[in-house]
Amino acid sequence: MDVSTITIIGLVAATCTTISFAPQAIKIIKTKHTKDLSLAMYLILTMGIFLWLVYGILIKNLPIIIANTITLLFSSTILILKIKYK
Amino acid sequence: MDVSTITIIGLVAATCTTISFAPQAIKIIKTKHTKDLSLAMYLILTMGIFLWLVYGILIKNLPIIIANTITLLFSSTILILKIKYK
Repeated sequence: MDVSTITIIGLVAATCTTISFAPQAIKIIKTKHTKDLSLAMYLILTMGIFLWLVYGILIKNLPIIIANTITLLFSSTILILKIKYK
Repeated sequence: MDVSTITIIGLVAATCTTISFAPQAIKIIKTKHTKDLSLAMYLILTMGIFLWLVYGILIKNLPIIIANTITLLFSSTILILKIKYK
């Protein structure tokens, strides 16, 4: 497989894992229900994504910075809503 | 900051985002409730993690392969339980 095809697979992967949290955030905004969501998951996940962002800044890697900035936005929104509608 | 400190930050980040899904899977197994979880999120996320794994295999990057194999296990478990307990 040539390099550009592999790069496209990586980009599609990054896009999927980045935008996947949007439907969850939208669902909570609509229903205001978060009972079935794990608080521990969103605490650990948000901290992990924040550390990925710090890592990306430290190694000056733009794709890591961009992907994790967007994911951090969604993840922290879900976390705040989980705490708010607990 | 020296390289080993930066690497540790990256490893902690990867560990957090990998294990974060475990508490959600455990919560569902205990409660059998998934109503508040977004099906679209886990469909897109699981596909994205699968593509990350394919990407890791193609570029022969062991950390990407290991992290995404574990995350895929958790994510697909949550997806299957979401469909089962819909």
